[in-house]
Amino acid sequence: MKEFWSKKAKSLTPYTAGEQPKERLVKLNTNENAYPPSPAVAAAVSQAAGRLRLYPDPDASRLCEAIAEYHGVRPQQVFCANGSDEALALCFSAFFQNGAEEAGSWFPGVSASRRVKTPDVGYSFYPVWAELFDVPLEMVPLKEDYSVDAEKMCGGSGAVFANPNAPTGIALPLSGVEEIIRETNGVTVVDEAYAAFGNVTAIPLVDRYPNLAVVRTFSKSHSLAGLRVGYVIADENLTAALRTVKDSFNSYPLDALAQAGAAAAIRDVEYCREVTGKIIETRAYTADKLQKLGVAVLPSSANFLFARFDSPSAEDVFAALRKRGVLVRWFSGKRTRDFLRITIGTREEMDTLLSALEDIL
Amino acid sequence: MKEFWSKKAKSLTPYTAGEQPKERLVKLNTNENAYPPSPAVAAAVSQAAGRLRLYPDPDASRLCEAIAEYHGVRPQQVFCANGSDEALALCFSAFFQNGAEEAGSWFPGVSASRRVKTPDVGYSFYPVWAELFDVPLEMVPLKEDYSVDAEKMCGGSGAVFANPNAPTGIALPLSGVEEIIRETNGVTVVDEAYAAFGNVTAIPLVDRYPNLAVVRTFSKSHSLAGLRVGYVIADENLTAALRTVKDSFNSYPLDALAQAGAAAAIRDVEYCREVTGKIIETRAYTADKLQKLGVAVLPSSANFLFARFDSPSAEDVFAALRKRGVLVRWFSGKRTRDFLRITIGTREEMDTLLSALEDIL
Repeated sequence: MKEFWSKKAKSLTPYTAGEQPKERLVKLNTNENAYPPSPAVAAAVSQAAGRLRLYPDPDASRLCEAIAEYHGVRPQQVFCANGSDEALALCFSAFFQNGAEEAGSWFPGVSASRRVKTPDVGYSFYPVWAELFDVPLEMVPLKEDYSVDAEKMCGGSGAVFANPNAPTGIALPLSGVEEIIRETNGVTVVDEAYAAFGNVTAIPLVDRYPNLAVVRTFSKSHSLAGLRVGYVIADENLTAALRTVKDSFNSYPLDALAQAGAAAAIRDVEYCREVTGKIIETRAYTADKLQKLGVAVLPSSANFLFARFDSPSAEDVFAALRKRGVLVRWFSGKRTRDFLRITIGTREEMDTLLSALEDIL
Repeated sequence: MKEFWSKKAKSLTPYTAGEQPKERLVKLNTNENAYPPSPAVAAAVSQAAGRLRLYPDPDASRLCEAIAEYHGVRPQQVFCANGSDEALALCFSAFFQNGAEEAGSWFPGVSASRRVKTPDVGYSFYPVWAELFDVPLEMVPLKEDYSVDAEKMCGGSGAVFANPNAPTGIALPLSGVEEIIRETNGVTVVDEAYAAFGNVTAIPLVDRYPNLAVVRTFSKSHSLAGLRVGYVIADENLTAALRTVKDSFNSYPLDALAQAGAAAAIRDVEYCREVTGKIIETRAYTADKLQKLGVAVLPSSANFLFARFDSPSAEDVFAALRKRGVLVRWFSGKRTRDFLRITIGTREEMDTLLSALEDIL
């Protein structure tokens, strides 16, 4: 088997995405937004559907402009990609890929100052990209309280972490983020997929730090997981590197419909604020109810809760919930296996979860 | 400059896509289809726009099924990607990326049997991917008549070529394609972006050759350049390699709208046949008129013509056409600089081109 596979293909262990179930379930497993996107999206998509004969704008210029306006940055500081996953993959290549001969085998035998640092509990795609691009990665343990250890994240040749972190949901204060940026020799990539549900963002630091790349997505904050649009906010020199790698891989990763739909979504500021507010409110409600059930939750700044289960075990609760038609996510890692990651759905969905849990516990 | 760029990013020379002009021009420069997509596309897109809150199917299963039905293959033999550019990039990684240490510098110093062969006149993205993935590439000269030299394409560790070739438009007969597949030690990638406009396809060979990957796109045949959908037809073992690399880079490269729109397009067999027929007819008409103007054209099986200009030079004719509002494509390479690549537009667009040429020549 695997005849004709390249050495690279043979060496890879791909990322496992959360399940997209075929049956009807209360779906709280992949952190999708509980509410539909702005109505402006469907209108923009329909209009753009009349121009599909032609290639789209390879640089998504209008979308970059809409994003720049939203965040108060310059369009040249914005780079758009096919979801934040592609944005992050291109960051690994553009900032960290220094050649297999230097990396050796991607983890051991490389001096600490040559390694890119990432928390040992984080988005499980980071080690996959490290392997794909031969980047030596150092897994930095979280603190006892599951927060990112800013001090220990310093001193690498690069850094990458989610803020708020996933699957913990805990946000590192901006002072800690800034410390990492300042004390990292190369680029710090801050993955802000969930930042809209908290109150910490590194975007205002982009003008001061030429080695900072902030990654965002439309999937969570703008209810557009199905449209695949992510972006990077960074110094022009860094967005130019991303464009160079993008144009060496796939010139047109964003189709005309995605460009139009995402631009319409980000312009509807009021709708996004309203939806985000409802999710934050439901998060507080759910955390409170869980604690009353005796379930500890980590302090979340995201659209999910990381909840601890001891008896029955988290794995057993996962299975029992699924039997009752509620899908959440369980990760088998040593420091995560006692938890379930629960997406914040609508109030009704959370009530269904809570009464299933009452039944199980 | 280029501070913080990785060694890889510094080393890349990206692909240059054909211009997408802002002004109104008769646009015959990027081989888009002259006609709009099937009306079924807009309907399918509108319907799918109601489900954007959720992640799309990462494997585009329904689209794979529609493609499989169209070509009479099994769904497991189909792999979908964000345009055929992404499909080709993933082929380079999945089949040819054997590590920089083996490739050395990607071209010189590698024995011929370790090199992937490609025609020296072909899609200019191939050398870019070779550089990105450290693949040693051998450029095999076209024959005197600008056709692919099947015999000289044999004997490599892999092969990649477009059939019909671009920018020449000339198709290699199936016997030549089969010879290359049989006499290549690794995988042969046949890029059939333009195959719908001719009568040669290697798809029926997929069941017999486990080392054949046929790449197709919706951009040309189905008028969907704006939707970014391409695919590979190959043995299940090869599509599994492609999925492994895809899932190590970006799990969801095809958004929900692209999946739905492309499936609707490929199911509308009658519409596609009609449009393709019109383009083939207009190609014959245009070739005939050009020859009457004293312009030699290579025999095209694609939706473009490669036309030779001696005096004035092709470069000068390109500029003169642009002044008259007609945009075609000129390539500066040694064996291509005497030609213009002219997309087959509507009959009216070709008449505009022809009278501009009458004026210029």
